[in-house]
Amino acid sequence: MISICRTPFVLVIFGGVGDLSERKLFPSLYNMFLDGLLCVDSRILLASRSPLGEVELDQWVANALAKTTRSGSEHDINVKSFRQMVSYVRLDANNPEHFLELASRIGDRQVPVIFYLATRSDLYSNICQFLAQSHLNTASSRIVLEKPIGMDLQSSQCLAETVDQYFDEKQIYRIDHYLGKETVQNLLVLRFANSIFETQWNQKYIDHIQITISETIGVEGRAGFYEKVGALRDMVQNHLLQLLCITAMEPPSRLHPNAVRDEKVKVLQALRPIVGNDIHAKVVRGQYRDGVSHGQAVVGYLKEDGVVNDSNTETFVALKVEIDNWRWAGVPFYLRTGKRLTNRACEIAVHFKEVPHSIFDIENKNTMANKLIFRLQPDEGVRLSVCEKRAGPGMSVSSTNLSLNPDRARKNRVPDAYERLLGDVIIGNQTLFVREDELMAAWEWLDPIISQWQKTEQPPEPYTSGTWGPAAATLLLAKDGRLWDEVGL
Amino acid sequence: MISICRTPFVLVIFGGVGDLSERKLFPSLYNMFLDGLLCVDSRILLASRSPLGEVELDQWVANALAKTTRSGSEHDINVKSFRQMVSYVRLDANNPEHFLELASRIGDRQVPVIFYLATRSDLYSNICQFLAQSHLNTASSRIVLEKPIGMDLQSSQCLAETVDQYFDEKQIYRIDHYLGKETVQNLLVLRFANSIFETQWNQKYIDHIQITISETIGVEGRAGFYEKVGALRDMVQNHLLQLLCITAMEPPSRLHPNAVRDEKVKVLQALRPIVGNDIHAKVVRGQYRDGVSHGQAVVGYLKEDGVVNDSNTETFVALKVEIDNWRWAGVPFYLRTGKRLTNRACEIAVHFKEVPHSIFDIENKNTMANKLIFRLQPDEGVRLSVCEKRAGPGMSVSSTNLSLNPDRARKNRVPDAYERLLGDVIIGNQTLFVREDELMAAWEWLDPIISQWQKTEQPPEPYTSGTWGPAAATLLLAKDGRLWDEVGL
Repeated sequence: MISICRTPFVLVIFGGVGDLSERKLFPSLYNMFLDGLLCVDSRILLASRSPLGEVELDQWVANALAKTTRSGSEHDINVKSFRQMVSYVRLDANNPEHFLELASRIGDRQVPVIFYLATRSDLYSNICQFLAQSHLNTASSRIVLEKPIGMDLQSSQCLAETVDQYFDEKQIYRIDHYLGKETVQNLLVLRFANSIFETQWNQKYIDHIQITISETIGVEGRAGFYEKVGALRDMVQNHLLQLLCITAMEPPSRLHPNAVRDEKVKVLQALRPIVGNDIHAKVVRGQYRDGVSHGQAVVGYLKEDGVVNDSNTETFVALKVEIDNWRWAGVPFYLRTGKRLTNRACEIAVHFKEVPHSIFDIENKNTMANKLIFRLQPDEGVRLSVCEKRAGPGMSVSSTNLSLNPDRARKNRVPDAYERLLGDVIIGNQTLFVREDELMAAWEWLDPIISQWQKTEQPPEPYTSGTWGPAAATLLLAKDGRLWDEVGL
Repeated sequence: MISICRTPFVLVIFGGVGDLSERKLFPSLYNMFLDGLLCVDSRILLASRSPLGEVELDQWVANALAKTTRSGSEHDINVKSFRQMVSYVRLDANNPEHFLELASRIGDRQVPVIFYLATRSDLYSNICQFLAQSHLNTASSRIVLEKPIGMDLQSSQCLAETVDQYFDEKQIYRIDHYLGKETVQNLLVLRFANSIFETQWNQKYIDHIQITISETIGVEGRAGFYEKVGALRDMVQNHLLQLLCITAMEPPSRLHPNAVRDEKVKVLQALRPIVGNDIHAKVVRGQYRDGVSHGQAVVGYLKEDGVVNDSNTETFVALKVEIDNWRWAGVPFYLRTGKRLTNRACEIAVHFKEVPHSIFDIENKNTMANKLIFRLQPDEGVRLSVCEKRAGPGMSVSSTNLSLNPDRARKNRVPDAYERLLGDVIIGNQTLFVREDELMAAWEWLDPIISQWQKTEQPPEPYTSGTWGPAAATLLLAKDGRLWDEVGL
């Protein structure tokens, strides 16, 4: 395996002093630095339109790193030392001249040059084109794209065509940061390194699977962006479908980037289309109203700043997804995501079938089927719910959890998803990045829903802030005799 | 279900002031009393040959209960209150007159009368006969027998004939206290209330099973008893084979005493006979020599007080057992027990098959197959070993344990096996007691081994105290490409 710490690189972050860079990329780079994972010969260039002096850059870096949880007594020395890798370059993405200057700053070092596009996606085309004009799209260059990559199948295809003109698929790293989470990678290991799980991972033993990504926050001043996007594009198209792929994929023959992504794209291609009347039957679209969040009264989506007062943008989506292959025939995957829900959580819950015949006094029949739960938020972890005997006389059975040893979990810091993914870009491992055909398959499957929602005059189902979404979401499972899990408890 | 606390009873303990009564029965009865499980109208009669005054009885009870772990500030009041249920009756098991007096002491209360034979088994015949002569074998009477019940098939059959003359099988409670342990009952629940385990509980998914009962103590002044018995009769015939039955049995159709015991006896009847040359190939007989135990030098078995210096009594047995049925064809059960071993432990370890194809960097291939471990000693608990991803870069896999929530385990006191079993005798539930046909099937299967060992001049294999037994035991598994687990760590 290529070692990250022996691989010097140049990282150019477009939107370098933006929100993502400050909240995620810099803290992650700094953590990697503290862990000895960054080769100190590397350089990090913050590209930004707004001019920034050395003092301001100092201040910005100090600010971004102040939020890391590892600020010990040596924090100042470490920041100073890390700071030496960082410099600033002024760059307007619409100005080709600036790219020439960028090229001269990079020089012709024989190291991977990574262009991280932490900007609005409507700048992607320009940036790619100007990088090429400045001969920066060499064999050793890589480009990292953040979501959303397009607004539907057509716009995504357009964007892909432009990027493909200048960069080869092997150079393109489409980030879905959920794939960088430890628990998602652990899902691969738990599935494919444990015979007790993989032998049961199919329609003979599994009843259904629930995947939830719930937020308690509302649109939080990002209405300008969110109004155009909505929950389906913001969460389902990428995160939820990627988690579904990792959960449902066949075992790859080896841990090779394309071997893994071949299996993931096969899942997307096997999704039963949701078209016509099925859209109403299998997809729930919601929008939050006034309510209570964390004990505070909060306003509904339509009253948020920047939201038009007849907006049909959905802040909640729930779907019943079916996969038409041998492994998953008859096993529904229920996905849901939303803002202003009861708890912040992300969980994949694999519900096994009930025992065919019970010989015990069962306290609560609803909780008795085995569940394997992968929790990505608010903390990461895995638990297996099993039935055990209650200590004492009689033979009463109750449900309990086998958890991954909490002592061990406490000892190791769980690295942020971006640490994992930045490291993989540096060493050139695309396994945890989304390939173009995956992206297109996801858009293709969602396109009928998107276009029907655009046409319909029916508004999204309202739901009270602080609840688990509209009643229709409960009904979606109730029709099948099932219940959503209480997540995030 | 019949409630224990609403069922008054008379309990007569033969050998009432003996070791078992003091160490196990009284502390258990007292714990049940503290838990509100004993009906206060009940009476406990200590029958003993040695005369005992009220003051001495007070002293004896106080002594037995001083060892309970729940001696809080109200201990004295509780003991006084419990003591009111207890009285003494003088009884020589060879004197029929004394049984008449016992009968008058019991009177004709319409409650279950339980005769607990905590004496040497050579007194069982007499006691049964004299109970009958005094008309104490009524429909409401029950008799509890402690191991060893016989020395081989023939002697066990003889004893059974006598007991059967006076008591019906429905009245006979043969104790194997391992069946009273919470974890053994939990094994039933984990198997039959969890689809993820029971669907894999067969030769398709399980590689082999290990059952270990190891002691660190030596013969501890019980040489007179042990010289005649040895490890095969003391541990294999009862505890190890019972644990094997619980592990290997088919699911009963209901939790009825005979439904469960029907399935257990079927396992014993399906054990592949070990006869002729197989005895040498599949059974290891050992005897401890000088060594170190808990950091102290200890002497070998032959130097213990009361052991003849050419004794062939085994202090260690290991066996490879095969079960000839559909579920277990090709899955060996390795059993072992011994004195003066490295750790005190009792574990049932179910080793699942390895994954058919591995795609990960494996740190230690030996520890990678899944294991489900039921631990009965030194503490009770269940753990499942699984492979997980090591946090951080790369995709390294290591083995870890999913454990039953330790917080929960700590909150509930785990009742002693005798509490469970005494409660079951009181309410008349025979599920966790050994039926006569089970006992006979176990003796029948062991008889060829017992008789060959009696004939052979070859002494048991010597092993150093403080080790895991003779090298031949390691070889027994090594021949099959397997290793014993390190237990009791």
